[in-house]
Amino acid sequence: MPLHGDSILAVGTVAFDTIRTPFGVRERVVGGAGTYAGWAASRISGSVGLVSVIGEDFPQSELEQMQAAGMDLSGVELRQGEKSFFWSGAYHMDLNTRDTLATELNVLADFKPVVPEKWRNAKWLLLGNIDPVLQLSVLDQMEERPQLTVLDTMNYWMESAMDGLLAVISRVDVVSINDDEARQLSGQHSLVRAAKHILSMGPKYAIIKKGEHGALLFQNNANGALEFFYAPALPLEEVVDPTGAGDTFAGGFLGHIARCGTTDFDTLKQAVVVGSALASFTCEAFGAERIRTVSEEELLERVDTFRTLVDFTPIAAVAI
Amino acid sequence: MPLHGDSILAVGTVAFDTIRTPFGVRERVVGGAGTYAGWAASRISGSVGLVSVIGEDFPQSELEQMQAAGMDLSGVELRQGEKSFFWSGAYHMDLNTRDTLATELNVLADFKPVVPEKWRNAKWLLLGNIDPVLQLSVLDQMEERPQLTVLDTMNYWMESAMDGLLAVISRVDVVSINDDEARQLSGQHSLVRAAKHILSMGPKYAIIKKGEHGALLFQNNANGALEFFYAPALPLEEVVDPTGAGDTFAGGFLGHIARCGTTDFDTLKQAVVVGSALASFTCEAFGAERIRTVSEEELLERVDTFRTLVDFTPIAAVAI
Repeated sequence: MPLHGDSILAVGTVAFDTIRTPFGVRERVVGGAGTYAGWAASRISGSVGLVSVIGEDFPQSELEQMQAAGMDLSGVELRQGEKSFFWSGAYHMDLNTRDTLATELNVLADFKPVVPEKWRNAKWLLLGNIDPVLQLSVLDQMEERPQLTVLDTMNYWMESAMDGLLAVISRVDVVSINDDEARQLSGQHSLVRAAKHILSMGPKYAIIKKGEHGALLFQNNANGALEFFYAPALPLEEVVDPTGAGDTFAGGFLGHIARCGTTDFDTLKQAVVVGSALASFTCEAFGAERIRTVSEEELLERVDTFRTLVDFTPIAAVAI
Repeated sequence: MPLHGDSILAVGTVAFDTIRTPFGVRERVVGGAGTYAGWAASRISGSVGLVSVIGEDFPQSELEQMQAAGMDLSGVELRQGEKSFFWSGAYHMDLNTRDTLATELNVLADFKPVVPEKWRNAKWLLLGNIDPVLQLSVLDQMEERPQLTVLDTMNYWMESAMDGLLAVISRVDVVSINDDEARQLSGQHSLVRAAKHILSMGPKYAIIKKGEHGALLFQNNANGALEFFYAPALPLEEVVDPTGAGDTFAGGFLGHIARCGTTDFDTLKQAVVVGSALASFTCEAFGAERIRTVSEEELLERVDTFRTLVDFTPIAAVAI
């Protein structure tokens, strides 16, 4: 598969998750940041080069489905005699908060990502949620700075690897994190101040994800003033499993940008909507089931729902 | 002052609040649901007839300012020798949650609201947050059912006066409550399901307020399908004091509808935006200071910010 203009390189875990929600349990479904991001991006853009590691317990049929969807797995190391990364978590009633029940690093313990030769000049790079040291290693292997690099991370790395995380943040274009994490990273409660703080750390754009409340996109415009965009989340009647929603968002976000080939604020706003729409599908089923079957028609319809959801007739006058 | 087509009748407290936030304290500022709703509605619509009760400690200068702004206080009972209702609360760091430090009912303890004769055929009725028994009494005094009745309430009444609250809900057109309260009232965590539940209790429209995350408006359309609208809140750099934001929202919401004179879903969507814009001003200062000085130009500019905040170039295609 040759590298095209819309090909995306992504690093992230390919793993097993056992997920408990108040409404059910699923044992060892295929998950991981790389899996969700890869499925999301490859559905709407060109090929996705995944950089990851799996054990011999990872099912061949899954790998075949990923390849059929346009994922190049030449950067996914297969370790014979070892087990894939495993995570288990239990969601609370609100399906917004969760406890980690188990983390088994397995193959991830001493993973050294290797970017395949032909992917080292990819224009679009997604540093999915994984140890910042590994994200830095991927950055270092690129021949030149990609046109846009998106970093997704989580609070775990703020507690255990802050130095590495700060180093990665200073070298990317977009940081995508959730609201609590933005507050933790910046020491600011106000999300506007948190975004300003993150933008001062190097990135051109900051995305703050608010789960069921949507996502905010920030940039400093040409005049140095903060500009922002708010994509609300679609209110869902039933959230089955939010695992991977953030990874799906990141993959869909960069997928849309890669497909358009432009990185202006207008394209990024659209990309936040496309990422949010894809993430809403991920929440509708356990694991990555829904994201791999969503049709173009369904996705376009949902994107349009995001538009009509917030659309109102302009208000010409208020009397005071 | 004659009753015009855009005159609003509102019941709610007119009181003193002592407010503690992590950034400051204000002692005995003028507050209360009736005060905030009255200021908001009278700024953008016609006259507002307030039904409330105050003690002799309430400053005459405040009453004069309210009258000058277009509030008819003939329904505000003044009790000589008694003290006005007093509430004191302390906000947590997030400025979204708070603890009540003191509640002194004073004149409110045995308040019997009397709707002045000329206000009994008002077309627009706001049942501001107060004991449901008092809201029912106001409803009973109306000569005919108003064109639109909006109910604002809070969890306190769900715990202490559920029967009365259910009776009021069954007789109003719009219920406006916050997300936690919607969940408590409906027993549903999903806000979509909570809205369905509330609509099944009688009202034609349900508004679920999500604080810094905006507000949702729901209706069952002509086909019986749930329709919704999401007005995100404007991300603010600094929230000074959110006290009265919900009351301001309710007053601004009904004020816009009264000014337009129509109750279709399009007008209600606009009204949610106008109410949210006014509420964002309330959050910028202690008490009702900001809402009584906001200019037409400032309000129109903020309403436009709510539009651009969520505006994105339509997405014609996604490749799958």
